[in-house]
Amino acid sequence: MEKDMDAGGQMSEVSCVDFWCNEFGMRVRIALRELGVPFEYIEEDLRVRERSDLVRRMNPVHRSIPILIHHGRPVCGSINIVEYIDEVWGGEETTRLLPNNPADRADARFWADFIDHKVFSTQTRFITSKGEEKDAAKEELVQQLKSLEEVLGDKTFFSGDEFGFLDVLFIPFSSMFYGYEQHGAFDLEVECPRLTRWEKRCKQRESVSEVLPDGKFQYDLHKVFYGIE
Amino acid sequence: MEKDMDAGGQMSEVSCVDFWCNEFGMRVRIALRELGVPFEYIEEDLRVRERSDLVRRMNPVHRSIPILIHHGRPVCGSINIVEYIDEVWGGEETTRLLPNNPADRADARFWADFIDHKVFSTQTRFITSKGEEKDAAKEELVQQLKSLEEVLGDKTFFSGDEFGFLDVLFIPFSSMFYGYEQHGAFDLEVECPRLTRWEKRCKQRESVSEVLPDGKFQYDLHKVFYGIE
Repeated sequence: MEKDMDAGGQMSEVSCVDFWCNEFGMRVRIALRELGVPFEYIEEDLRVRERSDLVRRMNPVHRSIPILIHHGRPVCGSINIVEYIDEVWGGEETTRLLPNNPADRADARFWADFIDHKVFSTQTRFITSKGEEKDAAKEELVQQLKSLEEVLGDKTFFSGDEFGFLDVLFIPFSSMFYGYEQHGAFDLEVECPRLTRWEKRCKQRESVSEVLPDGKFQYDLHKVFYGIE
Repeated sequence: MEKDMDAGGQMSEVSCVDFWCNEFGMRVRIALRELGVPFEYIEEDLRVRERSDLVRRMNPVHRSIPILIHHGRPVCGSINIVEYIDEVWGGEETTRLLPNNPADRADARFWADFIDHKVFSTQTRFITSKGEEKDAAKEELVQQLKSLEEVLGDKTFFSGDEFGFLDVLFIPFSSMFYGYEQHGAFDLEVECPRLTRWEKRCKQRESVSEVLPDGKFQYDLHKVFYGIE
């Protein structure tokens, strides 16, 4: 019997395949909680080298997580999944993660791409390098965080008064903030005061606090993952 | 007087900053034509190392093209722009590039990401490498094209009967097909017969034929760009 079947052999209507400390997967779990979608959580242990049959079958192209499975049909790629969740379960009467205005949506998608293709790679370089390369990566990462802080501005959330798309996508990265400070010997609150206040506001939400791992745990785990002493 | 102002100093309602043979920018110009949106084309010569003031101002984060400027507000990132064009000018009565169904939209976005983050990097590796690395990249590229061919299946277009989102995003890559064959000494029609038939169908559209450069031109230009003898 497979993990995505319940005792009666039925697949849950909505399942999320993820690993608990996966920054990309946390987005999906936060979005589902924000929109009140009940789901089954299926753990894929990334510490094991081989991917499970479920992941290989549901995401044969990338064999990566998170995967959202809705009525047996997979949706892959965390930003893609969050858009899907918003389109299926977000409504005019209920929470909507993406802004309504096309120009604001385009801005949100632009910064989503910035997080995934700039911030994440800089973060990885910063964590895994040493010496001058680490210093350079730190500078770059802080600049990127400052850029995001500028997008946030004096707003409560990236989307304005309501917690939305960019908040969902970026808040999982805050589980690395403690790690950033340890690796770079700096105080993020000094560098990006508005971003750290935003982080605190987000963490007051149940959807976030129930999903985000402790920063110290995350730091220790990344050291193990990347083989850092 | 800047290039994005007309004689009276007014910015056009819609401008597209691009370079004629830019595979990513072609998407934007095809999408605008498909939806019948009049626009001003502003050429950014990528052979010049320094980016123009317009590009530096409109896309300060990446300084890349294409950029769509609508009422003076920039939208950056080609997939993002095509989604924006669809949201602003696509309608229920007129052409709509993305499918209506959230699951089909998610599939389309998944393959869009595959084109940008798998096919494009493989293509670059294939074109710029030599010997064994080139052979390996060729194998990988052909496999990726076969994957896309499988998505196409026996449909007329990726979206079904109508030319849509994935067609817009992928058809510019067909301007490299001649180059693929030259670099890899193979016949794409033998490897991917359905894809080459799809290419011919797309090129019958004015939106595509007016935008796509000749494959031989594209091949020669890429040799110059990448310094290949």
